[in-house]
Amino acid sequence: MYEEIIDDLQRRLSSKRFAHTLGVARAAVALADRYGEDPEEAYLAGLLHDCAKEIPLSQMQELVDNSSLTIDVDMYVNGALLHGVSGAILANARYGVRSSYILDAIRYHTTGRVGMTTLDKIIFLADYIEETRDFPGVEVLRKIAFEDLDQGVLAGYDNTIHHLLDQGLSIYYKTILGRNDIIRRIKSR
Amino acid sequence: MYEEIIDDLQRRLSSKRFAHTLGVARAAVALADRYGEDPEEAYLAGLLHDCAKEIPLSQMQELVDNSSLTIDVDMYVNGALLHGVSGAILANARYGVRSSYILDAIRYHTTGRVGMTTLDKIIFLADYIEETRDFPGVEVLRKIAFEDLDQGVLAGYDNTIHHLLDQGLSIYYKTILGRNDIIRRIKSR
Repeated sequence: MYEEIIDDLQRRLSSKRFAHTLGVARAAVALADRYGEDPEEAYLAGLLHDCAKEIPLSQMQELVDNSSLTIDVDMYVNGALLHGVSGAILANARYGVRSSYILDAIRYHTTGRVGMTTLDKIIFLADYIEETRDFPGVEVLRKIAFEDLDQGVLAGYDNTIHHLLDQGLSIYYKTILGRNDIIRRIKSR
Repeated sequence: MYEEIIDDLQRRLSSKRFAHTLGVARAAVALADRYGEDPEEAYLAGLLHDCAKEIPLSQMQELVDNSSLTIDVDMYVNGALLHGVSGAILANARYGVRSSYILDAIRYHTTGRVGMTTLDKIIFLADYIEETRDFPGVEVLRKIAFEDLDQGVLAGYDNTIHHLLDQGLSIYYKTILGRNDIIRRIKSR
């Protein structure tokens, strides 16, 4: 399935990003199996999650400018954040994805959001745990991800925030709102 | 100076909090000397920073309800955050402090804010580094605080965020906005 999309991505992405992309798609299917989601939707969202990651920031901004989306300035100036939104726009315009469920999972895969859907969580986590990833704690994260989806997402948020603290970098405040929301949901169940 | 306030605080605070309070006032004077601020203002802000910390949450909320201040709900339900705001109200109503410069330093001493004043930063940091504090990294923080006020505040924010991550607790999003603002200011100087 999705051979044309895979061929197009292979032409457009670096070999490292392409390997990561296939890894995320596969991890997303495994998580979908575990948590009762449609594996084809998960595979497609995984394939396309970084489809805009290697275009210049100015092109990401152009995609956003020509869309109906409103983006806050902290995200607009930061390609590491903006590639999710521009990826969702590209997934629709270039790859013909019409499902807002899939497009939102692409849009929010890096930042998370308040009220994440199951597919949002799966792509968010698959991005951390896919087979080519290698960072301190990745094995623990892989284990948590298959035990409890919300605890996995919380560990993913914490991983990102630790990294930003260690590097002295800004933290996107909506990432914090997403993490607070997951904590509320875990506590209230 | 301020003998009446000190006597009143000693009656109203636990002995541990009272010792902390005197420590913060002294550390604030030392930082004020280092950074060219008025030591009397720093001492008074330090004395009163936790004046509402030991009242019940319902009383903190009553102080806020009867004031003209607007507080977001995340802070309103959390005494660990709300005691700064209610402390500023009490500093005005009970201790006769009229200076908004001092009242703001009390109000924002735990959360920080975007656009912190020098006195805000001094009280925020004095709260971490005063002589009775003992936690991993406190000596490093004491050193940074006297080398560079903004880098000290950044290290204070990071300390708080690490603690909240380790405990699996929510992070107040305005703390993140304050930290991002300090990073911007450090980079742009």
